Amino acid sequence: MTSFTERLQTIQTSQHSLLCIGLDTDITKLPSHFPRTPEGVLEFNKQVIEATHDLVCAYKLNLAFYEALGQDGWRVLHETRRRIPASVIAIADGKRGDIGNSSELYARALVTELQFDASTVHPYMGRDSLEPFFRTAGHGVFVLALTSNAGAKDLQYLKSGSKPLYEHVISRVRHWNTNHNLGLVAGATRPAQLKRIRALASGLPLLIPGVGAQGGDLKKAVQYGCDKNGLLAIINAGRNVIYASAGEDFADAARRAATAMREQINKYR
Amino acid sequence: MTSFTERLQTIQTSQHSLLCIGLDTDITKLPSHFPRTPEGVLEFNKQVIEATHDLVCAYKLNLAFYEALGQDGWRVLHETRRRIPASVIAIADGKRGDIGNSSELYARALVTELQFDASTVHPYMGRDSLEPFFRTAGHGVFVLALTSNAGAKDLQYLKSGSKPLYEHVISRVRHWNTNHNLGLVAGATRPAQLKRIRALASGLPLLIPGVGAQGGDLKKAVQYGCDKNGLLAIINAGRNVIYASAGEDFADAARRAATAMREQINKYR
Repeated sequence: MTSFTERLQTIQTSQHSLLCIGLDTDITKLPSHFPRTPEGVLEFNKQVIEATHDLVCAYKLNLAFYEALGQDGWRVLHETRRRIPASVIAIADGKRGDIGNSSELYARALVTELQFDASTVHPYMGRDSLEPFFRTAGHGVFVLALTSNAGAKDLQYLKSGSKPLYEHVISRVRHWNTNHNLGLVAGATRPAQLKRIRALASGLPLLIPGVGAQGGDLKKAVQYGCDKNGLLAIINAGRNVIYASAGEDFADAARRAATAMREQINKYR
Repeated sequence: MTSFTERLQTIQTSQHSLLCIGLDTDITKLPSHFPRTPEGVLEFNKQVIEATHDLVCAYKLNLAFYEALGQDGWRVLHETRRRIPASVIAIADGKRGDIGNSSELYARALVTELQFDASTVHPYMGRDSLEPFFRTAGHGVFVLALTSNAGAKDLQYLKSGSKPLYEHVISRVRHWNTNHNLGLVAGATRPAQLKRIRALASGLPLLIPGVGAQGGDLKKAVQYGCDKNGLLAIINAGRNVIYASAGEDFADAARRAATAMREQINKYR
């Protein structure tokens, strides 16, 4: 089986793109001509995917936005995932992490049932909490290392020995990566640390949120996040792409915003 | 508004119980006369709740088991939660934790929509990732400190300064606890540490999993987990109660197992 990391490299090369669009579709922010319903969210996602799938290496769906839809959430998540073509990566951003038998069920839902290509997970509960996700070499697992939010400072920078906690997470992840399918989440809001993370995490994909609304610098995210071949950084774009216009031209506007961002990223690679 | 911690003390006193039953209902383990369907899970939960609600202080629903039901999961979760009477605490064990705007949505789903009384959360992303949950004083938030699984050793024991990581988590949680609604998850499989956690976490509820199938010692969990009034420890019982019998007498068997466990706990308090 092709490992996740190999497949990501192939896709980033063939798509000529490191861009990931976050389909974090907020029902209250749909274009004004859309119904504010689960069907509206699905239709919006479909049109964004149709308008952008040749421009990206991945889509990332934050599960919180689907859970917020209540009993329709699962169906909208499932139908959206089905619209993502096999030429790109579909990431379930659920930040799961539980004891073994519970993580088995989370993994069964996201990996087996919904057939996502990758998931995000919390490192706090350790190896056995993540193993149901990374057992399948074709499924990518992005472990939270250094996150883009303010609260990252509460624990992630704590020093143990000479290293901050997130560097210990990176050591563990490298050690667990026998299937070549583990990666890290590293926020674009912390460029100096991102550079060091890339140096420590040679060969590992980095999922990089925080560009745009959260204030991360795109140039540094690309230059520090890529490996020496200009690959393995996945740059997530959220609200500035999918909400580029609130009018009837939202899909065209999303395509324009994604095109501009892909070009910018490729210039910095 | 009565804080969560005050309410928990009142309930533990009036129910004369520290027992929490984990409604981690596995569709493959339903009694043999049940249909292996989402409806079967709901009917099983209803009957377990009817048979045991006077014996417990709480029910804990691990969301992985409901997510595993696919598109019916939300409804079964919702309907199960509605069957839990107001005389006891309903805990959503989802171990969530994300950046602010995503955590807002998780909290809206679990706190506002499903009206759970408490949630479990991952500490790794820090204060702003948890604030949407603990903002409401009536909603309890159990932050993972020292978990019951083997993987707890991968990161939670890392020393920073003179203290292991989980003690830093405890310090932060105490600091954030201005609404008197924060608590900790501390596994029964680590009794020596549990004793110290209780000493450090004076006044905080402890949600204690790991008794039973995971091998934790009940006596130590109770003696070390309780505060000086014999309260604030929530002892979770999982498979040994809800699967006490696989026959038609499963509800009676669950009641017998819960009664025995409550009595044992009360003897040790």
